[in-house]
Amino acid sequence: MERVDIAIIGTGPAGVSAAITAKVRNKSVLLIGSRELSEKMSKAHQILNYPGLPEVSGADLVAGYKKQLAGLGIEVTEKRVNAVYAMGDYFGIQASGEILEASTVILAAGIVMGKPFPGENKLLGSGVSYCATCDAQFFRGKEVAVIGYGREAEQEADYLAEIVGKVHYFPMGKEEPQLSDAVEVVHERPKAITGTQTVSALETDAGSHPVDGVFILRDAIAPSQLVPGLATEENHVKVNLQMETNLPGLFACGDITGKPYQYIKAAGQGNVAALSAAEYLDKKKREI
Amino acid sequence: MERVDIAIIGTGPAGVSAAITAKVRNKSVLLIGSRELSEKMSKAHQILNYPGLPEVSGADLVAGYKKQLAGLGIEVTEKRVNAVYAMGDYFGIQASGEILEASTVILAAGIVMGKPFPGENKLLGSGVSYCATCDAQFFRGKEVAVIGYGREAEQEADYLAEIVGKVHYFPMGKEEPQLSDAVEVVHERPKAITGTQTVSALETDAGSHPVDGVFILRDAIAPSQLVPGLATEENHVKVNLQMETNLPGLFACGDITGKPYQYIKAAGQGNVAALSAAEYLDKKKREI
Ligand SMILES: Cc1cc2nc3c(=O)[nH]c(=O)nc-3n(C[C@H](O)[C@H](O)[C@H](O)COP(=O)(O)OP(=O)(O)OC[C@H]3O[C@@H](n4cnc5c(N)ncnc54)[C@H](O)[C@@H]3O)c2cc1C
Ligand SMILES: Cc1cc2nc3c(=O)[nH]c(=O)nc-3n(C[C@H](O)[C@H](O)[C@H](O)COP(=O)(O)OP(=O)(O)OC[C@H]3O[C@@H](n4cnc5c(N)ncnc54)[C@H](O)[C@@H]3O)c2cc1C
Repeated sequence: MERVDIAIIGTGPAGVSAAITAKVRNKSVLLIGSRELSEKMSKAHQILNYPGLPEVSGADLVAGYKKQLAGLGIEVTEKRVNAVYAMGDYFGIQASGEILEASTVILAAGIVMGKPFPGENKLLGSGVSYCATCDAQFFRGKEVAVIGYGREAEQEADYLAEIVGKVHYFPMGKEEPQLSDAVEVVHERPKAITGTQTVSALETDAGSHPVDGVFILRDAIAPSQLVPGLATEENHVKVNLQMETNLPGLFACGDITGKPYQYIKAAGQGNVAALSAAEYLDKKKREI
Repeated sequence: MERVDIAIIGTGPAGVSAAITAKVRNKSVLLIGSRELSEKMSKAHQILNYPGLPEVSGADLVAGYKKQLAGLGIEVTEKRVNAVYAMGDYFGIQASGEILEASTVILAAGIVMGKPFPGENKLLGSGVSYCATCDAQFFRGKEVAVIGYGREAEQEADYLAEIVGKVHYFPMGKEEPQLSDAVEVVHERPKAITGTQTVSALETDAGSHPVDGVFILRDAIAPSQLVPGLATEENHVKVNLQMETNLPGLFACGDITGKPYQYIKAAGQGNVAALSAAEYLDKKKREI
């Protein structure tokens, strides 16, 4: 696989804006996320404070963004990024089982809602996982719980059911999940993950479920888990006004950098991140 | 005059975005600038990197902004701000001869292009002035030079000619200035301002013009001259990620905060500045 100039993780206003500016600046771009862009856009009925688009609906904003990406020849690579590794002079991006390469990375993955479950941080890597594709194989023939936050979690649970012994699915959203028959849906509220060395059970408001693993499939992964070594503050990526993080070549923008959580702020920061990445690349080129 | 919650200086993307978000947040807003918004918008032929508006022209972006302001009931107060004074728990805004009052101020005045003329800083206040309305009276019956950078400078020169003895106008733009017959247009390039205690002459590429005063009427005033006590760095206002300056209650956004100089970045920072100002006001209210 070719190494791109700038990989952008996330297809909300931050990621889309970064992709547009990076492309206009003549850099090769890998935009990773959903072709439907961000649910935080599509679900908004009416947006009053997006300058230039009075009272635009979220759906129309998504449509406008898609048209603009298409016009510039930017495709969305539909993958889920599980980890980003700084490899010296490039980055390795683990996405849906593959490793992609980029000279710079822009994190635009939005925010993780909610606090970790009791036991989650302690047992992470010892039965707690955020990535079905990465860890399913360790649970062959065993029982696992999935705490699922959306459509993508459902797809991952179906995949898990093909590999592991038994999947218990705990839906966190309001909608009834669409799952294969192999997955058992449990309508209980997860409360805590227990176990001493490794996971032994998922506790809920209604009882205890003995399992060997718990997959927590949120819409977004905490940034410090996504990128080892990344400096964060209260679950947000620490950036300066140029959207630089503590890792050279890695930039962040949008909700992931902290409050306020707003479309136009995300788009503005995406633009700055792309220009900073372009400048970083140009400087490196001159040094060679 | 009523004291407004948030005064916004400048009507480019930064100021307009701040006004929109401030109004949506239910604050009273005083938006000071030009009804034609910013020339840096209207003069752009095609903008490729404004997310949501593919290949928009500057003129169309201006039209969209105007419509949005009108829809929200936000009027532009057409004045030029000469100085902003922190008065403790409010700000005094000196604008076209009047003093306006606001609980918070957002600076969105764009950047000053070009370096100061030799002698400009030394003789500022000793014959060098940036404000015809403020200082015309000191030059009654005397000769002054105006170094003018645009339409508004021409209007100020006409006004000066009504008060002072003689006005020599040095146009810095490419277009032929439109001035009253009382003003003498001089097509020479200003080079330096000379004088020991006070201004004695304006030196140009073609000779020396003995004058008592030099009015330099740029599109924007250096931020440190606009707001006494404001912390700056290389002519840009120092801000943090919340767009706070070193002066409590004073915020800045857009080009005035530094590079990159970009529309969507300016709009994004305007949004953040407005929310920070709103939060500042709400916090102060709770403290009372
Ligand atoms: C219902 C609703 C209404 C709102 N109304 C307004 C409003 O009126 N005005 C306003 O300014 N703001 C509003 N907001 C807030 C606004 O939606 C957010 O601030 C904005 O979407 C943030 O943009 P972003 O690009 O940073 O992140 P997001 O829009 O959250 O986009 C991040 C994207 O990255 C993807 N992603 C995350 N992790 C990964 C990964 N590991 N691999 C691949 N992709 C990943 C996510 O699936 C998502 O699509 C609203 C939010 C909601 C939910
Ligand atoms: C020809 C051209 C093309 C460009 N193309 C692009 C592009 O394609 N993409 C892009 O992202 N950027 C582009 N830019 C840059 C972009 O125009 C600026 O980054 C943007 O306008 C900055 O917005 P702002 O609100 O910070 O300041 P400005 O747009 O400069 O607005 C500041 C406003 O404040 C007013 N003001 C200043 N001082 C005072 C005062 N004392 N009292 C009252 N009002 C005051 C000014 O008159 C001005 O109207 C272009 C610029 C130019 C000149």
